[in-house]
Amino acid sequence: MISASGRNNLLILSQDFETYKHLIEEASLPGLSILPTNEPRRAIQQGLQADILLGEPSLVSQVLNSLTQIKWVQTTWAGVEPLLAEGIRRDYLLTNARNVYGSMMSEYVFGYLLLVERKILDRWQSQRAGKWDERPNGTLRGKLLGLMGVGTIGAHIAHTAKHFGLFVHGYTRQTETCAYVDRYFHAAELLQFAHDLDYLVCTLPGTSATRGLIDHHFLEALPKKAWLINVGRGSAIDENALADALHNGTLAGAVLDVFSQEPLPAKHPLWSAPHTFITSHTAARNYLPDIASLFVQNYQRFIRGAPLLYQVDFNQGY
Amino acid sequence: MISASGRNNLLILSQDFETYKHLIEEASLPGLSILPTNEPRRAIQQGLQADILLGEPSLVSQVLNSLTQIKWVQTTWAGVEPLLAEGIRRDYLLTNARNVYGSMMSEYVFGYLLLVERKILDRWQSQRAGKWDERPNGTLRGKLLGLMGVGTIGAHIAHTAKHFGLFVHGYTRQTETCAYVDRYFHAAELLQFAHDLDYLVCTLPGTSATRGLIDHHFLEALPKKAWLINVGRGSAIDENALADALHNGTLAGAVLDVFSQEPLPAKHPLWSAPHTFITSHTAARNYLPDIASLFVQNYQRFIRGAPLLYQVDFNQGY
Repeated sequence: MISASGRNNLLILSQDFETYKHLIEEASLPGLSILPTNEPRRAIQQGLQADILLGEPSLVSQVLNSLTQIKWVQTTWAGVEPLLAEGIRRDYLLTNARNVYGSMMSEYVFGYLLLVERKILDRWQSQRAGKWDERPNGTLRGKLLGLMGVGTIGAHIAHTAKHFGLFVHGYTRQTETCAYVDRYFHAAELLQFAHDLDYLVCTLPGTSATRGLIDHHFLEALPKKAWLINVGRGSAIDENALADALHNGTLAGAVLDVFSQEPLPAKHPLWSAPHTFITSHTAARNYLPDIASLFVQNYQRFIRGAPLLYQVDFNQGY
Repeated sequence: MISASGRNNLLILSQDFETYKHLIEEASLPGLSILPTNEPRRAIQQGLQADILLGEPSLVSQVLNSLTQIKWVQTTWAGVEPLLAEGIRRDYLLTNARNVYGSMMSEYVFGYLLLVERKILDRWQSQRAGKWDERPNGTLRGKLLGLMGVGTIGAHIAHTAKHFGLFVHGYTRQTETCAYVDRYFHAAELLQFAHDLDYLVCTLPGTSATRGLIDHHFLEALPKKAWLINVGRGSAIDENALADALHNGTLAGAVLDVFSQEPLPAKHPLWSAPHTFITSHTAARNYLPDIASLFVQNYQRFIRGAPLLYQVDFNQGY
């Protein structure tokens, strides 16, 4: 473990520079100075002696190879794809914002699942027609939700699912540590996992191992009643196969917040797919106080040489 | 406590007669016979010797004064107003379906709260326009929810609220037994309770004590940012005052499932109130297996003379 005594210079590269600066200064961290720029090119030109970097991965990736004295990078996002690109140094500690998106992801997923089960859009249209609409509801209770990826976000969704009385299956290559998952599936059990699901919720990160995992074989293994919800990364899904399944009615519907290409191109067939909700990578925006608090906790660990929270394994990509 | 040994005849007066009959027969209850009619007039004409009645309060109220040998009535609904009318006998045990609506009420309330916070309708409209919509979301976390009525339904909503990280205030005349309520208000503290709420969720039953409790004074005490959600009874609200508040923008919005008159009359100003969702008393339909299971539990208590679950106090009305 890298330890750091004496003074540490923090460079913040974030669109929320002022807020992070304020929140971190409030914590009065020992030995920490915050450098006065938020601009990657200026940071490089001035040869700023930063030891620590806090910021968005897409900004951090622009300075990493120049600021070779950086020992630790804390990202403000869960996904760190820009820092995994070829040719970028990996000789530093990388920690991501892993445990701060769970509650917002749960709000998103269950907002849409309840919209579907409780026929909220149908009822709103009845209301606009002045119609007293007594059609019965569905319910979440007793349904089966399958999670692809059971990291901290998946675990939060599993917890909320149990609160609403769902059964939860999990597909993961990690260890089986989430108390809210009723049954785990691994590796070759992927198609077996798809069988019988009411909802498939994908929280997979964008890595070489997850690319295209949800392909036409997997989509065919899902029952016709199933809804697919993706809050992970678009690259995990064969989006043309998904659009076909939705247009053909072999899948009940989809809720998609992430896409291989963002914004989703104007002519993409997913825009017009029936029973499909498209949002704009807005399921979980960074909640700044949580991320500042994570930085503060990790800094306190950093200066005493303790292991940092949520360290990223460069080979796994998360 | 009334106890009953030997044989007991059960009359089921419900639109779900066949399902209840099947579910109860499956439990093989000792000494229980199910009478072969589901029709109030026929039950009276045949002078059926029913000891126990299971059914919808509006059907039960039609036979109670004729079938004087009835010792216990289990209703399939939480609200028992038809059985509280003047002139109907009260010399029997009345139990209601109290603990079976909580999960469905929570689904309803949080379906709409998430719809509002996560701007689901706005985003759906952006999607239909082919627009990539990156406007930020609200979040439930940290908001303040006020519950009017903290019975079993209120307690379930409070539990879900805590799961999503809300603060919960409760206004009740009952004892303070719900672990999910952060602060209680009583009696004259009604306007103080209204102060600062983000959401007011009314689960009040329709009794003489709750009639018009949400009047124009109360509505004026709510902050402008507040949403009002009513899943109790329409009679608790001065609906004209509510329509005025919504049309004038002194209240942010409303989600209403119950009304003084149902269906809500075609020309009622609530139909056209802005930021208002109107549903048709469909927030919580009876979940038959739960109600059958409650009947089975209560029957087992009944035959051994034990106190029944969810007995209604005729004077309180719940």
